[in-house]
Amino acid sequence: MRLTRFSDNALRCLIALAVHEGKPATTEQVARQMAMSNDHLVKVVSRLATLGLIETLRGRKGGIRLARPATEINVGDVVRATEGNLVLVECFDPLENECPIAPVCGLAPVLDQALAAFFAVLDRHTLADLVAQRMELSQLMHA
Amino acid sequence: MRLTRFSDNALRCLIALAVHEGKPATTEQVARQMAMSNDHLVKVVSRLATLGLIETLRGRKGGIRLARPATEINVGDVVRATEGNLVLVECFDPLENECPIAPVCGLAPVLDQALAAFFAVLDRHTLADLVAQRMELSQLMHA
Repeated sequence: MRLTRFSDNALRCLIALAVHEGKPATTEQVARQMAMSNDHLVKVVSRLATLGLIETLRGRKGGIRLARPATEINVGDVVRATEGNLVLVECFDPLENECPIAPVCGLAPVLDQALAAFFAVLDRHTLADLVAQRMELSQLMHA
Repeated sequence: MRLTRFSDNALRCLIALAVHEGKPATTEQVARQMAMSNDHLVKVVSRLATLGLIETLRGRKGGIRLARPATEINVGDVVRATEGNLVLVECFDPLENECPIAPVCGLAPVLDQALAAFFAVLDRHTLADLVAQRMELSQLMHA
């Protein structure tokens, strides 16, 4: 069980921008500071901008920054938006399912409950919680 | 986010054997009844036998069956055993991690809590709960 690389990168990008505290950063800076591939980051930035979580500023002092305070960006919402369809097992997706017992099997409802419990924890946290140690994070990003 | 195919197949195999209620079934039967590849099933059977969840009976009336009552097989235990290392994101694995902020980042503890909540739900269920509709399951498996 693993989050997609896309979600992982999206969270890392948001964490970096939260550490920057509203000061625009270029994607090259963020990629370097977080040891991410710039190609991966560019894809994530485009999606996060569409989601209204970050904004792009043009010009010499331009770059990307959070579109809202970190306290107003919910971790559960981010992961839901970046994971897309949460197909924990094959039978979660009617188009993909080949298991004949799916209509009466007790597994899917249990996994549904477990997934809801997973997101209930994420929903209790905002991006601000992830960067509580801002000074130390900033030091490691600029090391 | 998705369980491995291995976990999915392991759960399907256990569900099929629980529907058989202790009567041995061949892997060919289970594979056919659950629309699984026999190759995938053979790998899963070997692991489930090692875990002491199923047993193999030799001879003409041989096959595989549950090694314990379905009420004594915990869903959380099965998924933990079949998922192996639960590396939700890169930084969960020190050998794999390249993210420089991992030591002070607030993401891993939140994901740890979420994963614990996920398994807490699975831990409340046994294999018997997954086959509560045994008659209907049996009909679909033999259709």
